Amino acid sequence: MSEAEQVLQTARRGRTAAVTLAPLPRAAKDAALLVMADALEARAAEIVKANAEDVAAARENGTPESMIDRLSLSEERIAGIASAVREIADLPDPVGEVVRGSTLPNGLEVRQVRVPFGVIGIVYEGRPNVTVDAAALCLKSGNAALLRGSSSAYRSNTAIVDVLRDALTGTEVPEDAVQLVPGTSRDSVTHLMNARGLVDVLIPRGGASLIQNVVRNSTVPVIETGVGNCHVYVDAAADLDMAEKILINSKAQRVSVCNAAETLLVHESVAAAFLPRALAALKEAGVTVHGDERVRSFSGDVVPATEEDWSEEYLSYDIAAAVVPSLDAAVEHIRRYGSAHTDAIVSDSQAAVRRFVAYVDSAAVSVNASTRFTDGGEYGFGAEIGISTQKLHARGPMGLPEMTTTKYVVTGEGHVR
Amino acid sequence: MSEAEQVLQTARRGRTAAVTLAPLPRAAKDAALLVMADALEARAAEIVKANAEDVAAARENGTPESMIDRLSLSEERIAGIASAVREIADLPDPVGEVVRGSTLPNGLEVRQVRVPFGVIGIVYEGRPNVTVDAAALCLKSGNAALLRGSSSAYRSNTAIVDVLRDALTGTEVPEDAVQLVPGTSRDSVTHLMNARGLVDVLIPRGGASLIQNVVRNSTVPVIETGVGNCHVYVDAAADLDMAEKILINSKAQRVSVCNAAETLLVHESVAAAFLPRALAALKEAGVTVHGDERVRSFSGDVVPATEEDWSEEYLSYDIAAAVVPSLDAAVEHIRRYGSAHTDAIVSDSQAAVRRFVAYVDSAAVSVNASTRFTDGGEYGFGAEIGISTQKLHARGPMGLPEMTTTKYVVTGEGHVR
Repeated sequence: MSEAEQVLQTARRGRTAAVTLAPLPRAAKDAALLVMADALEARAAEIVKANAEDVAAARENGTPESMIDRLSLSEERIAGIASAVREIADLPDPVGEVVRGSTLPNGLEVRQVRVPFGVIGIVYEGRPNVTVDAAALCLKSGNAALLRGSSSAYRSNTAIVDVLRDALTGTEVPEDAVQLVPGTSRDSVTHLMNARGLVDVLIPRGGASLIQNVVRNSTVPVIETGVGNCHVYVDAAADLDMAEKILINSKAQRVSVCNAAETLLVHESVAAAFLPRALAALKEAGVTVHGDERVRSFSGDVVPATEEDWSEEYLSYDIAAAVVPSLDAAVEHIRRYGSAHTDAIVSDSQAAVRRFVAYVDSAAVSVNASTRFTDGGEYGFGAEIGISTQKLHARGPMGLPEMTTTKYVVTGEGHVR
Repeated sequence: MSEAEQVLQTARRGRTAAVTLAPLPRAAKDAALLVMADALEARAAEIVKANAEDVAAARENGTPESMIDRLSLSEERIAGIASAVREIADLPDPVGEVVRGSTLPNGLEVRQVRVPFGVIGIVYEGRPNVTVDAAALCLKSGNAALLRGSSSAYRSNTAIVDVLRDALTGTEVPEDAVQLVPGTSRDSVTHLMNARGLVDVLIPRGGASLIQNVVRNSTVPVIETGVGNCHVYVDAAADLDMAEKILINSKAQRVSVCNAAETLLVHESVAAAFLPRALAALKEAGVTVHGDERVRSFSGDVVPATEEDWSEEYLSYDIAAAVVPSLDAAVEHIRRYGSAHTDAIVSDSQAAVRRFVAYVDSAAVSVNASTRFTDGGEYGFGAEIGISTQKLHARGPMGLPEMTTTKYVVTGEGHVR
């Protein structure tokens, strides 16, 4: 059988499983999740063994240590992954929620009810914990999962999915609710992107090139996630202590994530008061500043910013920095170079905040708070499948409700028009 | 300038207008809508004159009378279109609605607020009234509209858009909030579909081939609308008087619309009691039945159904009909051949209704009610831009809230992680 046909068969099995899974009550889904969590712990040794082969192969290929760390599993890490599954079981079930409802003047009852999508394909990189996380979030929201992880984690993912599927055999959830997409070539992603009618939605999670490939070439509807060129704008009316704290936290608390700041914009009226201390604090945090001329006038450590720096998602200890003549210039810079993920203003001016919030067209706007808060866990969603940077369907952190669609149920007693 | 460049420039102007339009308060938008409505009436003669040229050209091309009727405008019809604009002005503004909000344990305030998409492209056929309707719905929801109507209505649409834009010059809404996409060739649609980053969402309204072209080839996110192969399933526990009334209304009240029924499924236990009267009633309504063998055994007027009939969206006085051995067989038929638009069950059995609602995966499920109710106006939305048959973003009739996205606004007082 060709790889394309194998992928389509996997999708068809997912579709069949989805029919059974979609209307299952919460108790059945939670019971299955708990069995999955127990099985992960009970069979951790197997998973660690398969993972060790992936890690050894990655080392041989000269993979950098930071990537090796993301790929590596231990029994302790697996226990952590299992407890995340138990937390997902504890979350409320989005399915069946009546989103909107009314009785029309003619007596017809209209209810808009949350229902699962059906089959969700997740395309991701690196970390094998995403395999478990995505499977559990899909299952809890009543969706069959088609998991397409990185080829570098294929042995780990195969072992994990074997454990999860075995665990499901004793439950009401069909085991095809959790499937690994066969194949490790780029083509297997292409087959998934063309499985229109079998796959209801694709969610790519990973680097910019993976996401762009899926968004541009998929005929299956896509939810775009996560490229973050986030800005911190320090306004004329900013509390400069607060601004420094928010800047350093946004940039340096964790640099490899999409909600980390990548560009600092400073209003010219506070540039002389703020930039010397900000540049010193960034230096102390180990951050290299790529600045425009006015920023460079405050420190010899600042390297010259190129046009590319303004669009860069560094995901490293680097930040671009510019002085702007006004709030409107800051907004225009953000609209031009930003990725519409998260942008922050530090200001004590009500008028400035109101204008920034109104004109910055991003998934999240932080007011006097770190960009790092744009996260399903931080928002209290309990879990997230990713952060949408598109405007359709969901925008910002996506929790369980964002993994569903709705259906109108209209009930009458012989009503006609 | 190439046609592609002309289309992109139009999109760029829309983008600029959208920045001004998005944060405008309701009062400014409603004032503009009322000025537009007045202008349409005041300059109706101009529009009728341009329309007469389109109609003459269509007649010369041998366009059927039903299409000519859809294309034709009179001063009276324009008055009706203007009053629809005034009704849109009366509807609540979706923009600014706080969809979700909470204060996190750390004191951070999280608000999810409705905001406009930005620029919406509408690709449609035939009727020039859609030009006004789409422009008004986009404006009310804070979006700039790029209108790409049928080439057969190009003169009418040009005249209408001229009137609307002239009307906007005296208002707070920039005139580029309403633009006609230049060009009448198929290519101009292609350019629009590739204007990723300039156009936020495309909504195709029209026939199946138009919609499939846009859905499959657009890199701009699309909301798929409207193909309806709707079913009426008459259950074993149906009230047969009710079933007949709902069947005839669903099929014949208006045949050219997407929420009209195209297939009748009858449970075998009531086939002998229901089909003779149903076939007689359909005949009286002028409907040709394309039936399977069992349906044909009840009347010589039934023509044999081919495999294609089960998937057909007739939009005419035709209906496919089959006898099914069970409710589950009906559900399977609907899942296999349906378009997931609207499917109805007629049954007095609570268990049957519950199972049908749970397993039919369609945008709307009608219980003891005509399929014809799937409509924004009928649902009390006041207006609709179309009926989404996709699962992403919006599903079913789309009113003003469905023409918006959301933005998270997170407010702290120096909060860091």
